Amino acid sequence: MKLLIEKEILLESLTNVMRAISPRNIIPILNGVKFDLEKEGLYITASDSDITIKTFIEKKKIKNINKTGSIIIQSKYLLDIIRKMPNTDINIEVVDGLKIIINTENIIYNLNCLNTEDYPSIELEEIKNPIIISSKNLKKIINQTLFAVSTQESRPLLTGLNLKINNNILECTATDSYRLAKKTLILDKNYENYDLVIPGRNISELDKLLSIENNVEIHPFTNKILFKYNNYLFQSNLLSGTYPNTENLIPTNFEIISTTSLNDFYHAIDRVALLTQNKDKNTIKIETADTTILITSNASEIGKVEETVIINKNSSDNLSISFCSKYMLEALRAFDEKELLILLNTDSSPIVLKSITDESLIQLILPIKTY
Amino acid sequence: MKLLIEKEILLESLTNVMRAISPRNIIPILNGVKFDLEKEGLYITASDSDITIKTFIEKKKIKNINKTGSIIIQSKYLLDIIRKMPNTDINIEVVDGLKIIINTENIIYNLNCLNTEDYPSIELEEIKNPIIISSKNLKKIINQTLFAVSTQESRPLLTGLNLKINNNILECTATDSYRLAKKTLILDKNYENYDLVIPGRNISELDKLLSIENNVEIHPFTNKILFKYNNYLFQSNLLSGTYPNTENLIPTNFEIISTTSLNDFYHAIDRVALLTQNKDKNTIKIETADTTILITSNASEIGKVEETVIINKNSSDNLSISFCSKYMLEALRAFDEKELLILLNTDSSPIVLKSITDESLIQLILPIKTY
Repeated sequence: MKLLIEKEILLESLTNVMRAISPRNIIPILNGVKFDLEKEGLYITASDSDITIKTFIEKKKIKNINKTGSIIIQSKYLLDIIRKMPNTDINIEVVDGLKIIINTENIIYNLNCLNTEDYPSIELEEIKNPIIISSKNLKKIINQTLFAVSTQESRPLLTGLNLKINNNILECTATDSYRLAKKTLILDKNYENYDLVIPGRNISELDKLLSIENNVEIHPFTNKILFKYNNYLFQSNLLSGTYPNTENLIPTNFEIISTTSLNDFYHAIDRVALLTQNKDKNTIKIETADTTILITSNASEIGKVEETVIINKNSSDNLSISFCSKYMLEALRAFDEKELLILLNTDSSPIVLKSITDESLIQLILPIKTY
Repeated sequence: MKLLIEKEILLESLTNVMRAISPRNIIPILNGVKFDLEKEGLYITASDSDITIKTFIEKKKIKNINKTGSIIIQSKYLLDIIRKMPNTDINIEVVDGLKIIINTENIIYNLNCLNTEDYPSIELEEIKNPIIISSKNLKKIINQTLFAVSTQESRPLLTGLNLKINNNILECTATDSYRLAKKTLILDKNYENYDLVIPGRNISELDKLLSIENNVEIHPFTNKILFKYNNYLFQSNLLSGTYPNTENLIPTNFEIISTTSLNDFYHAIDRVALLTQNKDKNTIKIETADTTILITSNASEIGKVEETVIINKNSSDNLSISFCSKYMLEALRAFDEKELLILLNTDSSPIVLKSITDESLIQLILPIKTY
């Protein structure tokens, strides 16, 4: 294998592909990045067996392909080596079978490599009718829901993001059983029905990959899912099992329907939450009045804090309800509106947040009972 | 105590004063910030008993002084509370002796306070003829030397920065016994002679305080030193003992005098050091030739790297010498020139770095014997 390639082109591809390499990986060969130089261009693959990312740099973006071939380069120093290279063309060349030379005019790295025969064969399959969605929409869906997945392994399925496709409706749900985020999106046409759970950690790596606006093709299988975007293939394993039905968790009728300024409410919660930040539950309380909402918290050793925010309310009923401020702040950050709907029933039923104009996003937070 | 003050004014003062509060502090009262409201303005003091910072906000910068008095506020949440306040005037008011109210129109914090009587009395003394130096020069001196202080407590004096004043010459030295940084500066006039050692950690906090260009007054005492800058008083304890005489460590004659591009040499060292970054000693080697210097490193499991940089040399002698790349990179960052002097004698004598035009900065690195 021998090629000459511009630093910036190689660096961008490597940076993205190497997101698949996990620092927790214990299989030595998977700490390597696979280079396959073919006549038509360079394929670069990295995998931690849970995520696989593969990219293709086409021939015309490579200065010179002298000799095709394959090699596995230890990833540990590779990204830093390329990043710190001067902005020039870099020569990459396999010598003596298992050594690689990476050099420019003045600098020469001579690195030990791994045998391509030891690299697991990873099939990156595609389906005939992939689901098509813009990278912008996909990023938005991810950012509006992913934060709500569970970080606890006791219920593994909840550590994943649930993706449901029903004709032309995509529904994305995350819950850790204390709060829930749900976003729906209308697709361009009808597709086959799917109901998948993608590990949250993997989705967060996919999110980092989606930097440019372009279409993303989604190719779902029973136990894996492939995202095709620009010159990248991103494959993730799926979590097995049936995701809990969350439909009946979300109330449809509310005793108290109130609207408030998202910005004012967010900053008030943020300020009141300050005194609870070191506690486990970060519990704060809201109390509705006729035209205001009072937000309070109490940390016995430090002191207490209260803030009022103006609201519009549909009824004369009032309610006092406690919840985890961290969950509320994360839910509020998912909205991008001026005005927000806060929907309440009793002090033991979920708090629901919605946009006034757009029904597609629902944030739900379970209250905390205080005595 | 009761006053009304603009958020930004209070925030800036608090941010700076609270640099004195150490997270490792074990004396409860020193986790508090002392507010003293007098007729002429507000004094704010914080201390960890090693560093004390005091600032003064004059009357005309305060919206309203309703009632003078003193209080100690727990620092833990205070800075976040003020930072997250809306940009408006903040009312601060002591109630019931040991409680404080911090409020704006919509938000009210009610915090428990500490008793001013328990706060240690810290004398911030001044001398008649303080040494005067611009904050810009002081920052420069600090940044060119401080990195070389020792982080190991086995020789406590070496964890400090040595400041010597001899007539109109200020000399600043740091060494961890493996490398040494020395900077001299001509002062505006003759001063008394001093020879002090300031704890490195404290100097690094002082450096953060010096954000605006202005003169700094230095008031040295036997066991403490006071820096006066803008509205801030910064006092640090001194390390006791006699700093080792480093004068005779720095060679004055050199077998090989070479010049090279600082930028090229720095980046070459940085690249070659990559493969050694996880090792204890980060040992890399340079070998001079007639017009080039070859920089190499070798990490048996990973591979090896070499880079050549062009030099100008005064003699036909050549030398191969090994050293710690981290020390070399830190020393090189202290220079701000295009061309650099690399001064060598034998493979067991120190490497000395100097600017071509300016004798005031010397960086010295001891070689590592390799076999």
